[in-house]
Amino acid sequence: MENQTTPYLKVDLPTFESNLSRMSEALPGVSLRPHVKAFKSTSVAKRLHKAGHIAFCCATIKEMEGMAAAGLSDDLLLANEVLDTKRLSTIAENGANVTVAVDSKETIDAVASGGVSNILIDVNVGLRRCGCAVPEAGNLGEYARNKGLNIRGVMGYEGHLMMVKNRSTQAEEVKSAMALLMLAHKDVGGQIISAGGTGTFDINIWATEIQAGSYLFMDTEYAKLDLPFSQCLTVMSRVISIAPDKSWAVVDAGIKALGMDHGNPSVSGGVVGFCSDEHTTLYPPEGQSKVTWKIGDLVPLLPAHVDPTIAKHSRMLAFEDERLVEEWVIDLKGW
Amino acid sequence: MENQTTPYLKVDLPTFESNLSRMSEALPGVSLRPHVKAFKSTSVAKRLHKAGHIAFCCATIKEMEGMAAAGLSDDLLLANEVLDTKRLSTIAENGANVTVAVDSKETIDAVASGGVSNILIDVNVGLRRCGCAVPEAGNLGEYARNKGLNIRGVMGYEGHLMMVKNRSTQAEEVKSAMALLMLAHKDVGGQIISAGGTGTFDINIWATEIQAGSYLFMDTEYAKLDLPFSQCLTVMSRVISIAPDKSWAVVDAGIKALGMDHGNPSVSGGVVGFCSDEHTTLYPPEGQSKVTWKIGDLVPLLPAHVDPTIAKHSRMLAFEDERLVEEWVIDLKGW
Repeated sequence: MENQTTPYLKVDLPTFESNLSRMSEALPGVSLRPHVKAFKSTSVAKRLHKAGHIAFCCATIKEMEGMAAAGLSDDLLLANEVLDTKRLSTIAENGANVTVAVDSKETIDAVASGGVSNILIDVNVGLRRCGCAVPEAGNLGEYARNKGLNIRGVMGYEGHLMMVKNRSTQAEEVKSAMALLMLAHKDVGGQIISAGGTGTFDINIWATEIQAGSYLFMDTEYAKLDLPFSQCLTVMSRVISIAPDKSWAVVDAGIKALGMDHGNPSVSGGVVGFCSDEHTTLYPPEGQSKVTWKIGDLVPLLPAHVDPTIAKHSRMLAFEDERLVEEWVIDLKGW
Repeated sequence: MENQTTPYLKVDLPTFESNLSRMSEALPGVSLRPHVKAFKSTSVAKRLHKAGHIAFCCATIKEMEGMAAAGLSDDLLLANEVLDTKRLSTIAENGANVTVAVDSKETIDAVASGGVSNILIDVNVGLRRCGCAVPEAGNLGEYARNKGLNIRGVMGYEGHLMMVKNRSTQAEEVKSAMALLMLAHKDVGGQIISAGGTGTFDINIWATEIQAGSYLFMDTEYAKLDLPFSQCLTVMSRVISIAPDKSWAVVDAGIKALGMDHGNPSVSGGVVGFCSDEHTTLYPPEGQSKVTWKIGDLVPLLPAHVDPTIAKHSRMLAFEDERLVEEWVIDLKGW
């Protein structure tokens, strides 16, 4: 693939498959609700479906629509509050099993006035983002039942605990967060307790289903944790310029090809200098004064945050032993 | 436009038009070479063309192709080094006037082996990114002439000086950087000295053409400088959740809708807390304990970096007096 247009997303397929099956062994079937926001690709979702994960969660209506259109509609959760439910009603009318998170009377009203009937009560377990207060969950449940909605259970994302490095500290803090969710669940009822993510998949033993997606690809931020998943997605770039004294190289992938909210990407065999719109400058490894890259070399950059990196591309190329074996379209972008 | 799906890009058209004409007055016709990377939209490019700016520069081959396909091909500069010139040859064969930046024998060879005949010698004037060393420029020019290429001049981007806040310091430093470019130009020849950007458009008096694009929309980073352009692009979001004690609000635009490399967006009437994939949390203004937003409110977020923000969307909606008047497709994304 030397002639592939750069930048492009390269997936190491054996590592991807190993990440996928490790998680499937730990959380088989519907005990994992893969988070579509991480990969935004029905090609990837189909692989997960094949592995037995038939229930998915999404962050946007666009993701819900795309999953339904691809026939992956057995159990689709919009794990996010939404006021405009028209498009969700449409996919529900066409046969998709749709559930929506709610955390206020306004969002319950929005769901009730549409054609969607299944909800989860979203509870704030400490992230300070969406979710109602614990003592409010029961009232919202009653309000929703009176509107004729079917309450499948509760949701509470402990996102503030994903990156706690000490695992026993993390386990304690997840336990406290989930104690809040269990309290809410007692008042709300339903079969589902939906929570968790890649960083707490094995520690959150209170949730009936874990919402995780980044584990499939990983990134330099998640790699800091002691998780049984390996990085397998790189942004492939090409060296287009070398400084006259070889003190730096420039590759043709920049901030429009990389999620930047967790900082710069990393590179093997050197140090990342700075990223511009379509460039990243690479310095020699510490203690060396010259780069060894040559103009034309392909250089893999390791993204710091995989979800927004993928959202900047239109496809991923899956390789096995440097042979291109599959192309996965990233078809769930936008809103 | 209360029912518009959020998030979306909103442009205040009168301010956009004022930015456009202020720049056109300062740098009429081909003394401005608008940078397509800033807006990635042939709709926007057509407005610039109508205002007399018939020469454009691009950062990617995809931008070059899209501009040529839209008939905006009078003078297209790829202001970037490239090794694969096949796609550029194709648009040149179809009648586009194509020029490419080069900074090494390798990139000259790539151009010469394709069907592109016009080049600019790219010179490093201090940014420490692409560009040859000044003493090398003449040699590269000779090498290129021997290959039968037409040298239109030199290019040297003083990107490291865009954000210098003291304008007289900035002017001094731009003068020094451009002295290097003039030296190279003496050795290389040609009509064009291409440089500059939004931050130095009026200070760089040595360039025969200024490469600027962000001035059309501006952002909170450029707003720190004393420039005669105003911010006119916002990411429109909707409040989907309010904390029980009203101590924060959550809107439905996050890092997948905002360029994050210059940091968080800003909001009028509050303080941005943190951005997640599809959320931004908003706190009350300093000294107040409760937010006044309500669920369903439309909230404009001011992006910190406009170019990568635009690259995350598929269209911009241009408004005049809160009335939608035009939709501009963002059709030049990808590579």
